[in-house]
Amino acid sequence: MVERILKANDAVARSNRSRFDAAGVLVVNFIGSPGAGKTAVLEQTVKGLRGRVALACIEGDPYTTRDAERIAALDCPVVQINTQGGCHLDASLVSQALDQLDLAAADLLLIENVGNLLCPSQYDLGEHLTVVVLSVTEGADKPEKYPAAFQRAQAVIINKVDALALTDVDLDAVTAAIRRFNPQAAIFPLSARTGEGVEPWLLWLEDRVKAVR
Amino acid sequence: MVERILKANDAVARSNRSRFDAAGVLVVNFIGSPGAGKTAVLEQTVKGLRGRVALACIEGDPYTTRDAERIAALDCPVVQINTQGGCHLDASLVSQALDQLDLAAADLLLIENVGNLLCPSQYDLGEHLTVVVLSVTEGADKPEKYPAAFQRAQAVIINKVDALALTDVDLDAVTAAIRRFNPQAAIFPLSARTGEGVEPWLLWLEDRVKAVR
Repeated sequence: MVERILKANDAVARSNRSRFDAAGVLVVNFIGSPGAGKTAVLEQTVKGLRGRVALACIEGDPYTTRDAERIAALDCPVVQINTQGGCHLDASLVSQALDQLDLAAADLLLIENVGNLLCPSQYDLGEHLTVVVLSVTEGADKPEKYPAAFQRAQAVIINKVDALALTDVDLDAVTAAIRRFNPQAAIFPLSARTGEGVEPWLLWLEDRVKAVR
Repeated sequence: MVERILKANDAVARSNRSRFDAAGVLVVNFIGSPGAGKTAVLEQTVKGLRGRVALACIEGDPYTTRDAERIAALDCPVVQINTQGGCHLDASLVSQALDQLDLAAADLLLIENVGNLLCPSQYDLGEHLTVVVLSVTEGADKPEKYPAAFQRAQAVIINKVDALALTDVDLDAVTAAIRRFNPQAAIFPLSARTGEGVEPWLLWLEDRVKAVR
């Protein structure tokens, strides 16, 4: 049953990817726990790449439109997907959202998945890159406990480094834990709240956008 | 399909509850995001109620035995359930774990669910009380985004209050957000790291244990 659902999802994901490629848009799927700071990372990315890259966002959330409102406030095109309590986005939900976006006008589409470190990692949305957002306050044991998300990531953002002083968490230990499950991923320690460390992430992402243009 | 699974789960949950009631054990199901501090709350609870209440724990985790090791280090009987990536505990997994516990010797059984604020809230394990652990670093918008977990809780622990100074989060706003979805729940702001605020939670829980003895 689960396998049949995943197979059907993969077919729609392939069709999404064809649409993205035809439009020349790079698509990034952001996965992370509730409160890891995914929306704050998207806000910093939209602000930081404004004028350099044409952006659009899709916001996944169980019920609210809060995150989409935060992105819309930055004058970035955004579509809200509400899963009605569902624990992950899937390729069909993204496909429907695409109908409300001008893909041809965008260079980069950021998709914020539902806050969940488990279920979203099973579903291909048709994205080119998966980025995991992990906050230091979650602890260094998360990659070992939730390996699937980390294994499929091309980049891991270690967010909330400004809060390190108030935790028992060691940044080197977090980095080593990620490396154990994914030696290749780019790792960006940063604070989406203070802006510290955001620039290397923006440069990395901009390079990837240029590669598909 | 999903409904059939939930119905089957409810039948096993009822049978678990009969076993708990026959043994005179109060059972608490802890739900929260990855890194909310569920294990740290369990550690404080085990240490704080030691000598007052006979405790046992069941630890749910996708893959590791880290949390069970932390509880075992406190000389508390503990059984690990690994879901092999599964996103929630269910009543059958708990039923199997019960076979490895001396229920008759316990007054209080603490069950730590898989780190996930969505899926675990759909599954009755046979527990008497659900407690949501929310950390202040996750932000005040979580009850609105993940209402099912908060609606079924008899208590909400607002963890990591020692980190409040390094966030933009307001404790009153978090409390108000919880109240909007659950006016009755007991709310305990505390720091499982420093021990601040733990005692009211322990007294509340001990009162509930006495009520079933």
